[in-house]
Amino acid sequence: MNLKIAVLPGDGIGPEVILQAKKALYAIGEVYNHEFVFEEALMGAVAIDKTGNPLPEQTLNLCLNTDAVLLGAIGDPKYDNNPNAKVRPEQGLLKLRKELGLFANIRPIKPYKALIESSPLKREIIEGADFTIFRELTGGAYFGTKTLNEEGTHASDLCEYSEEEITRIAHLAFQSAQKRRKKLTMVDKANVLETSRLWRKVVQKVSENYPDVKLDFLFVDNAAMQLILNPKQFDVILTENLFGDILSDEASVITGSIGLLPSVSLGKKNALFEPIHGSYPQAKGKNIANPIASILAAALLLEHFGLTKEAHVIYKAVEKAIEYKVVTVDLKPDSKFGTNEVGEFVSNFI
Amino acid sequence: MNLKIAVLPGDGIGPEVILQAKKALYAIGEVYNHEFVFEEALMGAVAIDKTGNPLPEQTLNLCLNTDAVLLGAIGDPKYDNNPNAKVRPEQGLLKLRKELGLFANIRPIKPYKALIESSPLKREIIEGADFTIFRELTGGAYFGTKTLNEEGTHASDLCEYSEEEITRIAHLAFQSAQKRRKKLTMVDKANVLETSRLWRKVVQKVSENYPDVKLDFLFVDNAAMQLILNPKQFDVILTENLFGDILSDEASVITGSIGLLPSVSLGKKNALFEPIHGSYPQAKGKNIANPIASILAAALLLEHFGLTKEAHVIYKAVEKAIEYKVVTVDLKPDSKFGTNEVGEFVSNFI
Ligand SMILES: CC(C)[C@H](C(=O)O)[C@@H](O)C(=O)O
Ligand SMILES: CC(C)[C@H](C(=O)O)[C@@H](O)C(=O)O
Repeated sequence: MNLKIAVLPGDGIGPEVILQAKKALYAIGEVYNHEFVFEEALMGAVAIDKTGNPLPEQTLNLCLNTDAVLLGAIGDPKYDNNPNAKVRPEQGLLKLRKELGLFANIRPIKPYKALIESSPLKREIIEGADFTIFRELTGGAYFGTKTLNEEGTHASDLCEYSEEEITRIAHLAFQSAQKRRKKLTMVDKANVLETSRLWRKVVQKVSENYPDVKLDFLFVDNAAMQLILNPKQFDVILTENLFGDILSDEASVITGSIGLLPSVSLGKKNALFEPIHGSYPQAKGKNIANPIASILAAALLLEHFGLTKEAHVIYKAVEKAIEYKVVTVDLKPDSKFGTNEVGEFVSNFI
Repeated sequence: MNLKIAVLPGDGIGPEVILQAKKALYAIGEVYNHEFVFEEALMGAVAIDKTGNPLPEQTLNLCLNTDAVLLGAIGDPKYDNNPNAKVRPEQGLLKLRKELGLFANIRPIKPYKALIESSPLKREIIEGADFTIFRELTGGAYFGTKTLNEEGTHASDLCEYSEEEITRIAHLAFQSAQKRRKKLTMVDKANVLETSRLWRKVVQKVSENYPDVKLDFLFVDNAAMQLILNPKQFDVILTENLFGDILSDEASVITGSIGLLPSVSLGKKNALFEPIHGSYPQAKGKNIANPIASILAAALLLEHFGLTKEAHVIYKAVEKAIEYKVVTVDLKPDSKFGTNEVGEFVSNFI
């Protein structure tokens, strides 16, 4: 197979972890005779620094015209603590999601056997947990009108949803549930928010097409609690953009490290693959960042294009790294292995 | 002391747990020579059933003209799963918060030594955790304009904040931090939301009055993760309404049961005390609901009126109940004690 992949290393640890993902893909390409052509482009704080624009035209065009996008991470504290910054790295990512129409962000959560002990949660709580979060990614408060009055004393964010936006991701989530344990939990705040009530209504309607899937509802506050009290109750979780952002980071604790979790964002034509962790600027250049989430993002990419066998080789290699404790310090505080060593181990195993 | 207390038992398990809180207050009154006069009123689903209004005029007037409000819980699934319901129990609670101007909801989180093992989190993670969440309670998406178009295909919720709303709760949070470990963590989503950027700016400004308090910032997705990974890092958490709703329920897992946590909501003149758990309709009338959160809400009420010694007698009694394992099934699955027995134990101990 021939794939052209746009690579956006981004900020902080992004470049280091993406390098390891590319190494894994090169190794797969060599062994299984595929050609992966990588084209790098700027996004995030690096893009602002070099061009003034967090998503330069050129980057967007590249992403629109490649088979897939592989993203590192974006974000830089120098923008976070400046409420008056007019351009911010995150705008690049949000614009990219919108322009590529990446409406569904999918994050699988499942602890590794060899890592059960690294979770802050007790073994009996997490052993056997296995669920997937479907987060709506191009709507809600992320993209609604924002206002700030002239005096800078009053601000607002509008959260909006339409039936169509809810319907399309609901179908994906129900289809995923059909292939899994046939349970879908809709998370919302329908006792307070109008948009949540619309979600509930539309999802109930969509559910009529999937009579074999059991649908239930949880308020987001309760869901935040249930994820920790009893994560095994979940199969597929469906929720809106901001709730999905919060709950999927929270759910990462089940696996022991956010450094292990990849996600895929799907649109009608495009797909973007990334680790769910952020740019972690404190770790930049120190060879301590966990590359596994990025390597697994590359595996999700392979799966997306039907290269299931190849993806499984990567999963296997990652499992071996974990089993042999060739892991970074987030998973083993006294580890002598860094980003590079873990990445090498994985690609050598392929 | 003479106190007139409005009691709103509400829905589900509300009446049962509030009964135990009243018993504790009666016992305190008898021993320490105070007169507590309780006046009960309707709110929530019970109020809708009897009057059509989730917060009848009479209830509101009573609350406005008493020293304090003691609330059970409100909510009923028959409204939750009907997106077209025109009146909902929660509207009563939200209106009460607004009318009494209860802008700050304060939820202390601290595990009991004797219960460390009932948390899903490992002992070393939670032992020593001790923090308080300040949640803004009368602003944000809870109270902004809501729309639903005629066809019922498009909905919106407006999240709004003003400098004034942020300033007043920020002062309370900083003052609390000064009396504690002098650290305040502001939780927001300033990389995406305009309201969050306003929060950051205003809180930074307020912080100049409290140079002895260390201020830091966390994005809400990261905060949801940090609460579980390392809850000991927190002292005072300050956040807006919806984030506070999610994070404080999530934080309850640290204590092993949401059935242990009370909260106080403060306005300029009024104060409301309640357990943070919901109406838990499945448990209604079964004598299995944990009354401790409500009993502790009563203790917070005493503290609020300067009856510190009396409040501590209740804390002591609750600790004893926990130590002697006179607790409900949420804390000890094979417990033979119910709501009533736990409440009796506590008031007998006073
Ligand atoms: C960087 C930020 C804008 C982003 C989000 O909130 O969506 C990130 O947290 C994520 O989850 O991908
Ligand atoms: C019942 C509901 C409206 C309420 C809220 O969301 O504020 C509850 O969850 C709470 O935290 O007090």
